[in-house]
Amino acid sequence: MGESPALVPGLVVHGSGPSPEAWLPAAMRTTLNAAADLGGGRAVELVVQGPAVALLATPGGPAAQLADLLAAGIGILACGNSLRSAGMTGEDLAAGVAVVPAAVGHLARRQWEGWAYIRI
Amino acid sequence: MGESPALVPGLVVHGSGPSPEAWLPAAMRTTLNAAADLGGGRAVELVVQGPAVALLATPGGPAAQLADLLAAGIGILACGNSLRSAGMTGEDLAAGVAVVPAAVGHLARRQWEGWAYIRI
Amino acid sequence: MGESPALVPGLVVHGSGPSPEAWLPAAMRTTLNAAADLGGGRAVELVVQGPAVALLATPGGPAAQLADLLAAGIGILACGNSLRSAGMTGEDLAAGVAVVPAAVGHLARRQWEGWAYIRI
Repeated sequence: MGESPALVPGLVVHGSGPSPEAWLPAAMRTTLNAAADLGGGRAVELVVQGPAVALLATPGGPAAQLADLLAAGIGILACGNSLRSAGMTGEDLAAGVAVVPAAVGHLARRQWEGWAYIRI
Repeated sequence: MGESPALVPGLVVHGSGPSPEAWLPAAMRTTLNAAADLGGGRAVELVVQGPAVALLATPGGPAAQLADLLAAGIGILACGNSLRSAGMTGEDLAAGVAVVPAAVGHLARRQWEGWAYIRI
Repeated sequence: MGESPALVPGLVVHGSGPSPEAWLPAAMRTTLNAAADLGGGRAVELVVQGPAVALLATPGGPAAQLADLLAAGIGILACGNSLRSAGMTGEDLAAGVAVVPAAVGHLARRQWEGWAYIRI
């Protein structure tokens, strides 16, 4: 196992489903706690799929937590397919949020690289 | 990594839970999109557990999508324990749907072989 | 792959979410079935996160099933963060239930060791 963070398998957290107001804030808190628990040597990404991507554009609420996650070095990734379904583009997202073409494809590739997977 | 598809780890998609009418069609669409995104070199299986297995016998609705998944080379696997709970057997399933004795056992073995796992 | 159970990757089952009365008994049954299906050579753990940890202290109901899981050699692990949110400590849990500091951290580390992961 090398010293480079890129070579140490990280953790992808998968958040998806209806009523994202009910679960996205908790998913963000859980991801932040996990990153603290795992320490600085492990990359952590929160992959957001489904109608929840709309909340990544909303000032206040979850977006207020976004700054904490980004400051902790956590990647916040919105599903490009979900954005299209919501009539949005990456331009609509809060600063610091990145886009992956398809959530499932990204989550599979990360696991093939050795990353752990958690479904919120 | 060999050239044989059987030696390249694939992806298992796990669909389970109440109210399958609400999630099985979306799970099928997500699985189909993932297979397209990942390209032809990766095997993809959709493992259906719980009351959703009854929908794999119903003409129309989700079963209409089944043909698209099978044509894309995606394996559709019903949980044998769930079939028994639903008072069904493999004979009741639409053509092309296979049965595994227990969904969780199959999902664990696939991951031990290196496959990625996604929970819908 | 050695003969020691500790060296053979096992299975972590992740149970979380609201209304645990509705899913914890089924999660326990699924985990017990999985352990039987996988045979004695594989370690199996059920990791309980969220309000469900309160049920691990309740006599009757799910706790009655606990004895079956423990007798089958399945580890029952409560999330320490969830216990704190519920105003509980490990002292409040039924005999045989262990505590991990954070469910997500434990689940990630197990997967980095090669264990399979199933989300209930």
